[in-house]
Amino acid sequence: MYRYLTQRNNLDLNKRKIINDPVFGFFNLQSELVFDLIEHPIFQRLRRIKQLGLTFQVFPGANHTRFEHALGSAYLMRQAISSLRNKGHIITEEEAEAVTIAILLHDIGHGPFSHVMENSLVHISHEEISILLMEEINSEISGKIDLAIKIFKNEYHKKFLCQLVSGQLDMDRLDYLGRDSFFSGVTEGHVGVDRIIKMLNVWNDNLVVEMKGIYSIEKFLIARRLMYWQVYLHKTVVSAEFLLINILNRAKELVSQGQKLFATPSLSIFLEKQFQPNDFRQNIKINNIPVLTHFSLLDDNDIHVSIKVWQNHSDQVLSYLSKCLINRNLFRVLTSDKPYPSKKIEKLRSTIKSHFNITEEEIKYFYINQELTNSAYSKGSENITVLSKNGKIMDFSDASDINLSALSKVVRKFFLCFPKELDFI
Amino acid sequence: MYRYLTQRNNLDLNKRKIINDPVFGFFNLQSELVFDLIEHPIFQRLRRIKQLGLTFQVFPGANHTRFEHALGSAYLMRQAISSLRNKGHIITEEEAEAVTIAILLHDIGHGPFSHVMENSLVHISHEEISILLMEEINSEISGKIDLAIKIFKNEYHKKFLCQLVSGQLDMDRLDYLGRDSFFSGVTEGHVGVDRIIKMLNVWNDNLVVEMKGIYSIEKFLIARRLMYWQVYLHKTVVSAEFLLINILNRAKELVSQGQKLFATPSLSIFLEKQFQPNDFRQNIKINNIPVLTHFSLLDDNDIHVSIKVWQNHSDQVLSYLSKCLINRNLFRVLTSDKPYPSKKIEKLRSTIKSHFNITEEEIKYFYINQELTNSAYSKGSENITVLSKNGKIMDFSDASDINLSALSKVVRKFFLCFPKELDFI
Amino acid sequence: MYRYLTQRNNLDLNKRKIINDPVFGFFNLQSELVFDLIEHPIFQRLRRIKQLGLTFQVFPGANHTRFEHALGSAYLMRQAISSLRNKGHIITEEEAEAVTIAILLHDIGHGPFSHVMENSLVHISHEEISILLMEEINSEISGKIDLAIKIFKNEYHKKFLCQLVSGQLDMDRLDYLGRDSFFSGVTEGHVGVDRIIKMLNVWNDNLVVEMKGIYSIEKFLIARRLMYWQVYLHKTVVSAEFLLINILNRAKELVSQGQKLFATPSLSIFLEKQFQPNDFRQNIKINNIPVLTHFSLLDDNDIHVSIKVWQNHSDQVLSYLSKCLINRNLFRVLTSDKPYPSKKIEKLRSTIKSHFNITEEEIKYFYINQELTNSAYSKGSENITVLSKNGKIMDFSDASDINLSALSKVVRKFFLCFPKELDFI
Amino acid sequence: MYRYLTQRNNLDLNKRKIINDPVFGFFNLQSELVFDLIEHPIFQRLRRIKQLGLTFQVFPGANHTRFEHALGSAYLMRQAISSLRNKGHIITEEEAEAVTIAILLHDIGHGPFSHVMENSLVHISHEEISILLMEEINSEISGKIDLAIKIFKNEYHKKFLCQLVSGQLDMDRLDYLGRDSFFSGVTEGHVGVDRIIKMLNVWNDNLVVEMKGIYSIEKFLIARRLMYWQVYLHKTVVSAEFLLINILNRAKELVSQGQKLFATPSLSIFLEKQFQPNDFRQNIKINNIPVLTHFSLLDDNDIHVSIKVWQNHSDQVLSYLSKCLINRNLFRVLTSDKPYPSKKIEKLRSTIKSHFNITEEEIKYFYINQELTNSAYSKGSENITVLSKNGKIMDFSDASDINLSALSKVVRKFFLCFPKELDFI
Repeated sequence: MYRYLTQRNNLDLNKRKIINDPVFGFFNLQSELVFDLIEHPIFQRLRRIKQLGLTFQVFPGANHTRFEHALGSAYLMRQAISSLRNKGHIITEEEAEAVTIAILLHDIGHGPFSHVMENSLVHISHEEISILLMEEINSEISGKIDLAIKIFKNEYHKKFLCQLVSGQLDMDRLDYLGRDSFFSGVTEGHVGVDRIIKMLNVWNDNLVVEMKGIYSIEKFLIARRLMYWQVYLHKTVVSAEFLLINILNRAKELVSQGQKLFATPSLSIFLEKQFQPNDFRQNIKINNIPVLTHFSLLDDNDIHVSIKVWQNHSDQVLSYLSKCLINRNLFRVLTSDKPYPSKKIEKLRSTIKSHFNITEEEIKYFYINQELTNSAYSKGSENITVLSKNGKIMDFSDASDINLSALSKVVRKFFLCFPKELDFI
Repeated sequence: MYRYLTQRNNLDLNKRKIINDPVFGFFNLQSELVFDLIEHPIFQRLRRIKQLGLTFQVFPGANHTRFEHALGSAYLMRQAISSLRNKGHIITEEEAEAVTIAILLHDIGHGPFSHVMENSLVHISHEEISILLMEEINSEISGKIDLAIKIFKNEYHKKFLCQLVSGQLDMDRLDYLGRDSFFSGVTEGHVGVDRIIKMLNVWNDNLVVEMKGIYSIEKFLIARRLMYWQVYLHKTVVSAEFLLINILNRAKELVSQGQKLFATPSLSIFLEKQFQPNDFRQNIKINNIPVLTHFSLLDDNDIHVSIKVWQNHSDQVLSYLSKCLINRNLFRVLTSDKPYPSKKIEKLRSTIKSHFNITEEEIKYFYINQELTNSAYSKGSENITVLSKNGKIMDFSDASDINLSALSKVVRKFFLCFPKELDFI
Repeated sequence: MYRYLTQRNNLDLNKRKIINDPVFGFFNLQSELVFDLIEHPIFQRLRRIKQLGLTFQVFPGANHTRFEHALGSAYLMRQAISSLRNKGHIITEEEAEAVTIAILLHDIGHGPFSHVMENSLVHISHEEISILLMEEINSEISGKIDLAIKIFKNEYHKKFLCQLVSGQLDMDRLDYLGRDSFFSGVTEGHVGVDRIIKMLNVWNDNLVVEMKGIYSIEKFLIARRLMYWQVYLHKTVVSAEFLLINILNRAKELVSQGQKLFATPSLSIFLEKQFQPNDFRQNIKINNIPVLTHFSLLDDNDIHVSIKVWQNHSDQVLSYLSKCLINRNLFRVLTSDKPYPSKKIEKLRSTIKSHFNITEEEIKYFYINQELTNSAYSKGSENITVLSKNGKIMDFSDASDINLSALSKVVRKFFLCFPKELDFI
Repeated sequence: MYRYLTQRNNLDLNKRKIINDPVFGFFNLQSELVFDLIEHPIFQRLRRIKQLGLTFQVFPGANHTRFEHALGSAYLMRQAISSLRNKGHIITEEEAEAVTIAILLHDIGHGPFSHVMENSLVHISHEEISILLMEEINSEISGKIDLAIKIFKNEYHKKFLCQLVSGQLDMDRLDYLGRDSFFSGVTEGHVGVDRIIKMLNVWNDNLVVEMKGIYSIEKFLIARRLMYWQVYLHKTVVSAEFLLINILNRAKELVSQGQKLFATPSLSIFLEKQFQPNDFRQNIKINNIPVLTHFSLLDDNDIHVSIKVWQNHSDQVLSYLSKCLINRNLFRVLTSDKPYPSKKIEKLRSTIKSHFNITEEEIKYFYINQELTNSAYSKGSENITVLSKNGKIMDFSDASDINLSALSKVVRKFFLCFPKELDFI
């Protein structure tokens, strides 16, 4: 793959590099290897992938990238390590570097508009691709991130290190909630990151939170819930994402029919061939280039540019949908607590068919009928454990006076989206 | 009383005065009368009364005053008026000024360490004194704030105006939660004031919140809960306040025994005589000065200064307690979900007695055994009403997916406080 | 051109639309027409053009767009209008809307990486394109923005309106300095926008600042100077921009030599043909589409995507430079107060030639030797006028105790950039 | 003196104590001894002394105390130590603790309204009292702060340690400018503390700033200048402080005439006796208590409370001035670049005399005629030294392109203050 890390010469300067972050201010990541990894093209590519995909269509400031989020998470990891060490827990410098790398690279497998891609072009989870890419990089640098990968896969005996990377209170969430709140301007999503990190502790090799931190946790869970419904599942954002799925699926269909379609080289590969998870695992070659390399060349720009061109494609469906997205003429969205009755859907389909004068087959591209769910806290495999003053352990939902059955309740919403110009309600 | 407002001459300049507030930035209150009231000595006195009493002993930045809070609330009121007018509700300029004045003066009856005072020296609620002082001022200025008082007493037909002053979502709470969070440095108490105000509406003359605002309300209630337990009922703050109650009660007892005690003139009055609510209502005169005037001369400084002197008083109890407060050698605090058993209390009392070598009567000054409660949201007389998109009305606890029985549950905590030096657990 | 604005139906809802901005919070722009213009595809396109071009390579948070800046400037304009009206100056609602539109559209002529483009592909200033596009839109909507264009061109008798759009203290600068400071994380660039706007006044139809605002102005000028050298002219940013110019010039050269090159359709047009200013003014057609339409289809994505593909182009020069930019392997930068001596340049050229094994002609793509200048305040045509309390007028540099010859001094720096791998100093 | 520090028992818990600061968030001061000193009554007393004296009369949020400032400075010191150590400079843990203590205690000699006091009741500088109190504490704790005192007095060979405590870029200034800006709401005074601290370095045992930090320094100096004229020397603040000086001088005069005057015990001592510097140095006893103990019992409350009582004193002068201050009916202020001509002063004096019907002797209490100066940067003994990349040293004023003769220019303003009710201009 890349031969990047071995080419550089003056390695030791990086260790002092200071990162200027609008959210956390100045910080330094204290490790040469971490900075080497940041300079890797696969990591640099995260600069070109927005953290929140199409959310900028609703929150104009939400242009922050997965690159910033990864750096921020790594910074919080250093804070958490320092806080746990102050409480007497032993974390060796090797472990500290490894867990920092694990969080730094945890999202490296994200493609552009990740959830959209997983529903259209790439049928494998980004978590799995993250591991594949981490192993790819690891082989380039002679196993220097072995331990990081072990922690990431939860194969290391100090479970709390993995929990800092992936768990109810991991540095990933602490960073992204705060960051997404900051850039979207939804200040209510603000998370008291400092205080939560100061309240973390370790008990029996597991990450726990001290009793006096429970109000901060409650607030964190409620802020998370607010961010879900106010930002992540904002109906206009959801509508834009569904539209993008329809566009990509239509483009893929046209390609499969042999139609000519402008696309950037990297995107073309994924429009032309339907990859299976095993293709990624075996890293098969297309045009003599491994599929993971193709994947890691994709970013937001490929999608935006191609759709911009498709506005003028001869296929009426593709052209119509592309114009809607590029010019932000997004679908109207209805939401409901119950599924929309099939009668209503039928009526919508016939309205669409007659209005756009299209075939029965094409109708599906002009509306979306989907269910979305969210629950803020699920008591189960990855619950939050609270450590009381007298050293007893309990589940957070038992420690809090608040009845958290509310937060763990799965909330379902049904979305029905269709072109604004339709005379349909 | 004061003949203040009538003495000034160049009245019209004030209208443009800009206030510089660390929390809300620059603002202007748009009314000449509002600025005249701000200049009144009774209002200026709020500059010398801390919003959070002794909380600065735990949160060093919490030195903000009731003066700032009153101005901030008035600013938010102007924002709320503007938002409601934009939605088509009619609020005359006269009403706007009156409701702004009502919120400006809502806390004018607070004395220093208000809750402490009401448990020691002044046996009447600050709300009632607020009304008495407002009426006093009103008579000085020929009834110019008649309407403000009417709104404050909820005697005006547009109920929502009173609810903006006093209700679950009033401007008082919106300001103090945000402000106390800001100055205490407990940033998690941050409230999305802007968004909540933009979500307010009026239905049937009552204040309601629009459906899409419910996540903000949830967060507001949780933030409020957090502020209660993390700041307002912080156990060291509670301990300091109980200590102050004991000090004032001891001082009063000594005075009643005829002992000589330094005190500022205003404080002396309240140490010497036990006023009844009716004394304030009839505004009886002591030393030829009305009791309300005496009251309005009291501020934090009188208390601090007197206790500082009492450190060297010959009474061992008063001297000991005063030293503890002034030098921040506060009582140790135990908390429990259940009342402390009388056996434990007995043991504590005998430990105290032998350690300090005091009489049976004096023991009570050396410990505190109290219950505190808090509920974040109470469905009842002053509930939050939600207005759905289709114009229907429901209670907030029914509108939210979160089970708010949790928030409305009365949480009880029992506090047991005693000198740190005691060997007692 | 576009027939966009006439297609929409429910126009009147927009007027209440609230924009959520990380910098200024919630705001509303109070005009239906303003919101219609925001929805125009030519304006929406600004969402895809970063305000600071390649600056994100140094300041990872600097991903904010010209879209956000335009909205922010319009918001500040409404604040300025309100402040001036409060001081008794008459600004009709028609004028208010027009000046808001003028600032909203002031940057509409920016292409991607504007300064880069003007040095490579597009030889006409963005200001002139702004006017051409405004006139284009104006003709679509039957002259509704006649007055805005008049103000923008400084052809309206109330000069101060134009000065609010373009002048030493215009809303453009007030927004971009604050916004760029916010997103770059260089908090020292923070500007006291609120205070400056409150200090503006009008004298003889000209915008002036009140005497008591001079410290704020000093600080604004110094903050601006700091932003220039710390962010805008940061040597690594400058190096990246020069690299991009070289890449585009090389690509253009290859195309002119008849070589095949991937490029998005819009970019291809500008690589293939060298447009003259008059081509834009006459809006000549290429492939039956007016050049302004081609231009308004270009955005950052076209450039990023094309360069990403060029990494693998067979031309060694193009491929090398493209890799440098995409993988952030930027040129090393030397700076000096004096021009670099030609001997040094010659030595550099020969080092490059032998290291890369290239032709004499190609050397120029491998280094940059440029001068950059900045002056924070220029006393001259667009000076800052100060209004003293007694109604006298003076230039800011006379009003301030600080010797502003310093700030107006043109500071020159010479940049010499070349590949990091070269053994050259 | 106090026997405080030796009484406590569980010393080791403090080391982990976390301070919650609105300006810097959570922090910890990493030293047991530092926390012991914080608990000392002489230090706790700083909680009752406002950092900005009477400034709250103009900026309602400016109620922050010297206690908070001392803690914040100590926190910045730990940051600076950490930054310098990262650059390879050796600072032993003993030195680190000592320099932290030196900054923590640097302002311990401040009395209430320090500059006022030094012009009325206490004729010795607060710096000298700081040293006297530090030595007092030192003798209580067996010389544990010997090194801190040595550094404070600049008697330690590593000069840069003293410069971190007291110099052009000391932690004192970095904290107070930022903090005063924060609480006054004058956000333009914001200082990029993080960046400046990161730019500090040591050269030849002296504190220097790195070349790339010069824009931050420029901004720091300008922000400081702005804070001077906008806050510290705000004319209404100045007017209030002069008023307080007149009040205290009048009170002292009345006492010297044998008149009876309410005052708190501590204040009485200073009204009754005129102490000389040597009295403090020898710590003479009054009423059997050392004068330094009397001094350290004084705080803002003593002054406020006494003046509040003086409103009703029979002396017309004292009563009038006290009412003005308590009810914020402050003197009107004129300012000028030149001294006010004696004719004008004469006219003012006679206006005062006839209006208030007072003696010739008393006139002086009813007006103030004073000069104030400020210069933001003085090249001289304590200049800022810049370290260029190639290791050369130069003065900041030579390193910056800005002509700093402007900043170092002593700016003089003449203030003339008199009662608002006077018909005099």
